[in-house]
Amino acid sequence: MRTGVWLVGARGSVATTSIVGALALRAGLAAPTGCVTELPELRGPALPALTDLVFGGHDVVCTPLTKRAETLADAGVVPARLVAALTAELTGVEEDLRPAPTGGSQADRAATLVRELTGFRDRHALDRLVVVNVSATEPVAVPHPAHADLAALRAALAGPDDVLPNSSLCAYAAFTAGAAFVDFTPSTGARLPALTALAAERGLPYAGHDGKTGETLVKSVLAPMFAMRNLAVRSWSGTNLLGGGDGATLADPAANAAKVESKQRVLGETLGYVPQGHTRIEYVEDLGDFKTAWDLVTFAGFLGTGMRMEFTWHGCDSALAAPLVLDLARLTAAAHATGHTGPLTELAFFFKDPLGAATHSLAEQWIRLGDFVRALHAAAGGADEPRG
Amino acid sequence: MRTGVWLVGARGSVATTSIVGALALRAGLAAPTGCVTELPELRGPALPALTDLVFGGHDVVCTPLTKRAETLADAGVVPARLVAALTAELTGVEEDLRPAPTGGSQADRAATLVRELTGFRDRHALDRLVVVNVSATEPVAVPHPAHADLAALRAALAGPDDVLPNSSLCAYAAFTAGAAFVDFTPSTGARLPALTALAAERGLPYAGHDGKTGETLVKSVLAPMFAMRNLAVRSWSGTNLLGGGDGATLADPAANAAKVESKQRVLGETLGYVPQGHTRIEYVEDLGDFKTAWDLVTFAGFLGTGMRMEFTWHGCDSALAAPLVLDLARLTAAAHATGHTGPLTELAFFFKDPLGAATHSLAEQWIRLGDFVRALHAAAGGADEPRG
Amino acid sequence: MRTGVWLVGARGSVATTSIVGALALRAGLAAPTGCVTELPELRGPALPALTDLVFGGHDVVCTPLTKRAETLADAGVVPARLVAALTAELTGVEEDLRPAPTGGSQADRAATLVRELTGFRDRHALDRLVVVNVSATEPVAVPHPAHADLAALRAALAGPDDVLPNSSLCAYAAFTAGAAFVDFTPSTGARLPALTALAAERGLPYAGHDGKTGETLVKSVLAPMFAMRNLAVRSWSGTNLLGGGDGATLADPAANAAKVESKQRVLGETLGYVPQGHTRIEYVEDLGDFKTAWDLVTFAGFLGTGMRMEFTWHGCDSALAAPLVLDLARLTAAAHATGHTGPLTELAFFFKDPLGAATHSLAEQWIRLGDFVRALHAAAGGADEPRG
Amino acid sequence: MRTGVWLVGARGSVATTSIVGALALRAGLAAPTGCVTELPELRGPALPALTDLVFGGHDVVCTPLTKRAETLADAGVVPARLVAALTAELTGVEEDLRPAPTGGSQADRAATLVRELTGFRDRHALDRLVVVNVSATEPVAVPHPAHADLAALRAALAGPDDVLPNSSLCAYAAFTAGAAFVDFTPSTGARLPALTALAAERGLPYAGHDGKTGETLVKSVLAPMFAMRNLAVRSWSGTNLLGGGDGATLADPAANAAKVESKQRVLGETLGYVPQGHTRIEYVEDLGDFKTAWDLVTFAGFLGTGMRMEFTWHGCDSALAAPLVLDLARLTAAAHATGHTGPLTELAFFFKDPLGAATHSLAEQWIRLGDFVRALHAAAGGADEPRG
Ligand SMILES: NC(=O)c1ccc[n+]([C@@H]2O[C@H](COP(=O)([O-])OP(=O)(O)OC[C@H]3O[C@@H](n4cnc5c(N)ncnc54)[C@H](O)[C@@H]3O)[C@@H](O)[C@H]2O)c1
Ligand SMILES: NC(=O)c1ccc[n+]([C@@H]2O[C@H](COP(=O)([O-])OP(=O)(O)OC[C@H]3O[C@@H](n4cnc5c(N)ncnc54)[C@H](O)[C@@H]3O)[C@@H](O)[C@H]2O)c1
Ligand SMILES: NC(=O)c1ccc[n+]([C@@H]2O[C@H](COP(=O)([O-])OP(=O)(O)OC[C@H]3O[C@@H](n4cnc5c(N)ncnc54)[C@H](O)[C@@H]3O)[C@@H](O)[C@H]2O)c1
Ligand SMILES: NC(=O)c1ccc[n+]([C@@H]2O[C@H](COP(=O)([O-])OP(=O)(O)OC[C@H]3O[C@@H](n4cnc5c(N)ncnc54)[C@H](O)[C@@H]3O)[C@@H](O)[C@H]2O)c1
Ligand code: NA
Ligand code: NA
Repeated sequence: MRTGVWLVGARGSVATTSIVGALALRAGLAAPTGCVTELPELRGPALPALTDLVFGGHDVVCTPLTKRAETLADAGVVPARLVAALTAELTGVEEDLRPAPTGGSQADRAATLVRELTGFRDRHALDRLVVVNVSATEPVAVPHPAHADLAALRAALAGPDDVLPNSSLCAYAAFTAGAAFVDFTPSTGARLPALTALAAERGLPYAGHDGKTGETLVKSVLAPMFAMRNLAVRSWSGTNLLGGGDGATLADPAANAAKVESKQRVLGETLGYVPQGHTRIEYVEDLGDFKTAWDLVTFAGFLGTGMRMEFTWHGCDSALAAPLVLDLARLTAAAHATGHTGPLTELAFFFKDPLGAATHSLAEQWIRLGDFVRALHAAAGGADEPRG
Repeated sequence: MRTGVWLVGARGSVATTSIVGALALRAGLAAPTGCVTELPELRGPALPALTDLVFGGHDVVCTPLTKRAETLADAGVVPARLVAALTAELTGVEEDLRPAPTGGSQADRAATLVRELTGFRDRHALDRLVVVNVSATEPVAVPHPAHADLAALRAALAGPDDVLPNSSLCAYAAFTAGAAFVDFTPSTGARLPALTALAAERGLPYAGHDGKTGETLVKSVLAPMFAMRNLAVRSWSGTNLLGGGDGATLADPAANAAKVESKQRVLGETLGYVPQGHTRIEYVEDLGDFKTAWDLVTFAGFLGTGMRMEFTWHGCDSALAAPLVLDLARLTAAAHATGHTGPLTELAFFFKDPLGAATHSLAEQWIRLGDFVRALHAAAGGADEPRG
Repeated sequence: MRTGVWLVGARGSVATTSIVGALALRAGLAAPTGCVTELPELRGPALPALTDLVFGGHDVVCTPLTKRAETLADAGVVPARLVAALTAELTGVEEDLRPAPTGGSQADRAATLVRELTGFRDRHALDRLVVVNVSATEPVAVPHPAHADLAALRAALAGPDDVLPNSSLCAYAAFTAGAAFVDFTPSTGARLPALTALAAERGLPYAGHDGKTGETLVKSVLAPMFAMRNLAVRSWSGTNLLGGGDGATLADPAANAAKVESKQRVLGETLGYVPQGHTRIEYVEDLGDFKTAWDLVTFAGFLGTGMRMEFTWHGCDSALAAPLVLDLARLTAAAHATGHTGPLTELAFFFKDPLGAATHSLAEQWIRLGDFVRALHAAAGGADEPRG
Repeated sequence: MRTGVWLVGARGSVATTSIVGALALRAGLAAPTGCVTELPELRGPALPALTDLVFGGHDVVCTPLTKRAETLADAGVVPARLVAALTAELTGVEEDLRPAPTGGSQADRAATLVRELTGFRDRHALDRLVVVNVSATEPVAVPHPAHADLAALRAALAGPDDVLPNSSLCAYAAFTAGAAFVDFTPSTGARLPALTALAAERGLPYAGHDGKTGETLVKSVLAPMFAMRNLAVRSWSGTNLLGGGDGATLADPAANAAKVESKQRVLGETLGYVPQGHTRIEYVEDLGDFKTAWDLVTFAGFLGTGMRMEFTWHGCDSALAAPLVLDLARLTAAAHATGHTGPLTELAFFFKDPLGAATHSLAEQWIRLGDFVRALHAAAGGADEPRG
């Protein structure tokens, strides 16, 4: 199953790391560390092979991909020797990258995107196409009446004003072009009734929101631990220090707000109450692509005795995110192939703010993911039986 | 169901905190924070009520229980006002505490214990009796041929030499007296073929080993997190600084060895490989009953990028252990009542080194525990239906 | 030398801890841990004895001192047994506590304060009087032309508007009453030209600002370490989580601003450049009087190699501040007695934002303090020779 | 002043980083970050210029220097582009590296070393020569009667047995060849009466022991902070996790013992009492040349209130050590030129276990160092006056 992966923000850190990594895996130069779909529990016939992924995308900047890859190598995000070995392949992908559409109405820009997606699919004879948003986090979106209704939305897009945030315009274009959609960011994406209706109309699945790679990942196992042990969490305060392009964006309080909100959700929903404390994001340029998060948790045990835990997470965000982007592209393509439409709530495992989340516990999300993937493989009639 | 809880090491920190806590709960002076069996998911008719627990036990020291409780209050382990309010009740429990048997052969000492257990049961008209070992951790036991066979063991116990470590002698006495047995320590306890045979002969269940309350608890959620995300853990090094009676015992390298070993197991078994690094226990008197554990985890993500996580756990061991002792007494009594015999592998959730462990993942252990408890309640025919 | 200590904010945590501590020291119930003036290097004849300190003060609230002391004991700030043992003495001090003056012009309120200070001095036949501001941090003060000139200030105070922030009004009253003044808070206090002129006119010394007790104390030794080793600090980010009355005040961004600014100063002035990163204060009620600060420092070594240090400080602010309040009262009284007037820049050791600071390095401040104190003792003609 | 730097362990991490760094500084490719002698307070005419340093040395292994440098570049210790740019220069230094002498008596081996030192001096027309020991840490040395007396030592060296540890044999050879000696390791080096006598006889200075680069550096500012504030340190426990060649050596408990001992000294000597707790070194291969140290300090403040501080230090040992090696070579050469002989106690600033240490406080050591260096410059009659 030849699967196209169209990256919105294709020259960003996450996108570039995803592309370098997929090319390295294809060339046999790296192991799939961090790829969840390569675990024995999830591997199987339903998923497109990593070597079947074809990359395209668009971005508002036009730094050459090899240049971005070298910058990431200098920063220690990807090995320099890989980038050097993959120059030709990266130049190949460059041919499928486009500038972000500008000018005209949003309808015009959507039409441009649809043409590019269709062209990409035809050029590479793709069986499936998945659009993945890994562009900069948007400010919290401005509500608009047309968000509630597909016909109204279509009419409004043709008007002079911008009606949709960019992430939603991309989801709109994706669905219009018959592509599935994944939002790896906290932006609005497909989360509007009009877009939900469009996805249903076209029989397309979508997934999101906001890749779970650092502090929230840890929270999604620690908060259930406190809950399972009936320990009372009194306060949970977090500080996230990060540099990189994403850090610079999040230094903007508006973008920050969207992100901080999705980081907090896991606690209230797992514990059943909201402990004191807040999560903060601060831009510290020197940290580059490596983020340092520090969390302090105070809790009470038997007879009210006060205790505390703190952790420091020092992770390379792009190196944590990129393999998940590959996982999500594979899983969403397979879900599409198997006839799944609408929100893929079974992929909550991957997200900070999962669509229709039944649970924020990583372990429960894992079980749901396993069940889902095994069903995909069963539908695919897999000789290559995955491990129970 | 009136349930007796006979504590080996009845004047230690864990035992005293368990007793103070149970009395406080009975008197309505405290909430059951930290009691797993009080969670909505596990509550139900099969378990003896917390108010149905009756305490007895033995110890090698004879410090009055109220004295020990006051010391724990001074150290911030239990609230001073609770100890003051419960003086009468504590003095009541004192009447059921005995010195540890000394002199004679091990057969003689076992007989004394059996008499005490039987007397305790009769005195309080108990429906069930559970012996819980919360005495000081023993050195790794010396092997003996009689451990393999019940008849040989009975013969050897009558001889002049000590054949069994104390924890195993207590298990032997418990089984002989028709009591279930829980080992909250890393000592040998019931883990000898001769004792397994005895439990089977008497139709008795037992559980163990080594209550999971701190660093290992955290490991049992973090290690699965790394595994589920296909991240390669390169090293995991731990330092446990602790004071208190248990700390002093563990400063002895022999006792330490047993403990350190059970702390390491979770990693290899969860990850499928053993990362570099060691766990160390050090006695620091000033820390008292509060333990500080620090762990450093280094791991590789996509394309080998190195990352790290560290955590500090500052917990009051006895306040974490005591509610689990109550949970285990209730669960083991209910299992006995429902006809369970042999190792209760479904109670792995509570232990660092669980008997017949299928998994070291806390989340998976939680699922097994839930299934087990729901089955107990179903067998008990509960009107008071627990939550699915 | 009978020395009066008049506390502005006399029922706050720092004030109450200072009073309890001084009474406990006088009664021989505690050792002077944390009192810098009790170190062998600084002890000597010039300083009033701890037993010579007499306490008074005013506050806007009227919670009884014994009540406040009991609350602090419950929170673990002071030992409950001390509070119980000192009830009579605390009730004695209560007689010298007054409500904060209200109503009328600021001139009226200043006059009331002057009367109270004079009354206190007379009642106790005090040789010296020191007013110490330990009241809640004020918002950054609003500039006013009368701040620049003493005559203009006197005129303006009689008018209907509030011209001075409260801390400055207290300094004004102190100087008018012939008392020295110490500002333990980041508020304006004596830092106005008109008040400087008044202190000079009356020949009075003053000291400040903002007691250095936690994160900044640590910074004042770590920043010089990096400087002395010619290591390049790239970023220094701090998070201060605190509960307590002070925490609640500082949750107000206006008060917060004053504090955060004084916390940052040490870095730029010690390193000669300002590294990236910020310091944040967040109110977390559950932490009570114990503050947790976490700092991350990234730095470059030889050939630019990046490294990092992080520290967590878990301190009881009031227990750190109170002995310094006693030190400052003793030192300021002795300075006054020896004829020092104006800003006591030699006391920079005690402050986050020291008056006329020549240096922010704790070690250099320590040397200046030692020289100053030895000169005081020499002037006092000390038989009881301090250690060189 | 052309100054030779002969490195014992010349192919180790510290040595290689020192050489790469000095060559990079000479070529204008790097700034002297981490070089204490380049601070404005210490710069001046007495010190040989960094461009005047000439490198030689010996080692028991023969890995080419460029190879070692590349390995260090791969590990992130030195920038890869520097190593690439300096290949020719590194090959140049290679010509002055020798295998460690083997075979024969220790007298024979010493004679070989003396010949090599003399040859090095002649070949490069050196004004001064300093031997710096940066070889692997030795086990604690075995006492021998000949250590006490120079004549006895000379006689014993000619015998069949090894009398001196290698570090001391190097000091012996250095002094015999008229070279000054610096011991950057915890090994015995010049610390034997017979060698002290030899240095005196030849009018040579020497310095040591054990470069202070990580946890102990931090301790040497934090311990004085607690002391200056009269806070009572109750416990101080440290864990050092390190990989690299030095880590592997220190995994050997014998070498470890020497190191751990020198790490503990600072506390007792600074505080005046020894707090509870220990320091541990553990080898964790994955950490490579980057060390992670974690320290927990518990302390009591006013009225006994317990508090705590913890810090994590994540430093690249070789990048911290190398600039100090250059500093020590420059300072020792200048001291020799100015007529200093015997132990250079004024260089305590650089060492964990300084010779004849008057103080372990970094700030006090800094003052002594400044005085010493200013006197050197004054003696050198510097037009280029250093800052007071
Ligand atoms: N890295 C992680 O761990 C992680 C986790 C969760 C979410 N995310 C999200 O993924 C996104 C990408 O992160 P990153 O680190 O790669 O950031 P980045 O700043 O390196 O890359 C973002 C890219 O998006 C491009 N872009 C901006 N506006 C665009 C637009 N309107 N259309 C197309 N492209 C646009 C930018 O030019 C840039 O190249 C962010 O939204 C981030 O919040 C990342
Ligand atoms: N607290 C925890 O979180 C935790 C977790 C896991 C396991 N444990 C285990 O629980 C046990 C108790 O811990 P603690 O903190 O209460 O220790 P403790 O030292 O306070 O108490 C142990 C008690 O056992 C008694 N004892 C010693 N030998 C005995 C014997 N032969 N027979 C009867 N009594 C004997 C001692 O006198 C003492 O009163 C230890 O083995 C510990 O390793 C505790
Ligand atoms: N504790 C420390 O380590 C530390 C360090 C540096 C500075 N400080 C400063 O010391 C001050 C006191 O701290 P705290 O923890 O005791 O706070 P707190 O809130 O417990 O006490 C402040 C007291 O000031 C009183 N007050 C408020 N406004 C007043 C007014 N106008 N006149 C008189 N009294 C007034 C309050 O009623 C309260 O009793 C704060 O400004 C704090 O920033 C404390
Ligand atoms: N890096 C630091 O921060 C630091 C701080 C204080 C002390 N030190 C000490 O510096 C020394 C060097 O550290 P490193 O990290 O470079 O270690 P390393 O293992 O990388 O290098 C040591 C070198 O010494 C050589 N060697 C061993 N025995 C020798 C002998 N008998 N004669 C000559 N050479 C010999 C080895 O072959 C190796 O090349 C160690 O003793 C270490 O304890 C280092
Ligand atoms: Na930490
Ligand atoms: Na920490």
